[in-house]
Amino acid sequence: MGQQDTEPVRSAGRDAQATRRRILDAATEEFSAKGLAGGRIAAIAERAQSNQRMIYAYYGNKDGLFDAVLEHHILAAQNAVVLDATDLPGYAQQVFDVYRSNPHFVRLMLWQFLERPELTRSLPGVETAVADKVAAIEAAQTAGAVGRQLPADRLLDHVLALTLGNLAGNPHTWSDDERDALGRSVALLTDPA
Amino acid sequence: MGQQDTEPVRSAGRDAQATRRRILDAATEEFSAKGLAGGRIAAIAERAQSNQRMIYAYYGNKDGLFDAVLEHHILAAQNAVVLDATDLPGYAQQVFDVYRSNPHFVRLMLWQFLERPELTRSLPGVETAVADKVAAIEAAQTAGAVGRQLPADRLLDHVLALTLGNLAGNPHTWSDDERDALGRSVALLTDPA
Repeated sequence: MGQQDTEPVRSAGRDAQATRRRILDAATEEFSAKGLAGGRIAAIAERAQSNQRMIYAYYGNKDGLFDAVLEHHILAAQNAVVLDATDLPGYAQQVFDVYRSNPHFVRLMLWQFLERPELTRSLPGVETAVADKVAAIEAAQTAGAVGRQLPADRLLDHVLALTLGNLAGNPHTWSDDERDALGRSVALLTDPA
Repeated sequence: MGQQDTEPVRSAGRDAQATRRRILDAATEEFSAKGLAGGRIAAIAERAQSNQRMIYAYYGNKDGLFDAVLEHHILAAQNAVVLDATDLPGYAQQVFDVYRSNPHFVRLMLWQFLERPELTRSLPGVETAVADKVAAIEAAQTAGAVGRQLPADRLLDHVLALTLGNLAGNPHTWSDDERDALGRSVALLTDPA
């Protein structure tokens, strides 16, 4: 096939990708502001310069779109952060940086907890990623690089709880002082005795 | 005034108190399940065996009722928990117990963060209670009973962040193992070096 045959197909693929991206961005804004029950597909379609039929074709229903939005941000966060189990303070600060730069993500996680609690567990890849992190922390504990006062899975839970802080104020306003304090607390939790 | 004069007044006072209590209980259920935007005054009136006119008379509007519900649970929690700054692990476990016994409270706090972030600061008594806790922790740090790696206000933030855990699952399902682990982590954060 010559270029004349393939070009329109590739172009259509790019268009579809761009449309999905616009829908995800618009849905991020809408669900972050209003949550799952309060978010409106019509508002998302308008903001994305798309239409509701297209959204239902891609995502099935509003729950499906919400799940896709959350999965998108979780995967982006997983790609942005590297866990070095011998530097859990640095890991916590990377997660903090992700939240601070993307307050929508924090809000989406809280909406998900309130309105769609069954989701996280069913996202393919999330459970595996957590299990990998726990295994890496366990190995670091065995090697003596991380304290053993807590089992690795609880330690990871506590480190992540600290990254969310006290849920006061927009993450955009979180300060470098808070980031430093987070690092110090995680060091206290994880330093070998 | 004789008993015949005062009795109906007292009785009306008791009725009003009982009505307000039923409204707060019904509003707790409704707002916990659906949040501020999703919660319906009509549903609350029906569940409380009251009527919407009465609710508006007592609380002004839906925001006012939501604020009253949150304030009720915050004050109840403050009364249920005693801060001994020399035993912050025990304090954290008391807060954990409050959440575990009242999952509505955790949900209401998250809805408040998402839908009414301006509230907590404006609740009379809350800021004072926090300032008192910070002062008590500072005094314990000065006395050498609590580690000084973190300033007292951040330390309190971190202790409270740990009490919420990783926000997975209904607090009713939180285990005694989690409670023990919470105590150990807070000890790591607070023990004098």
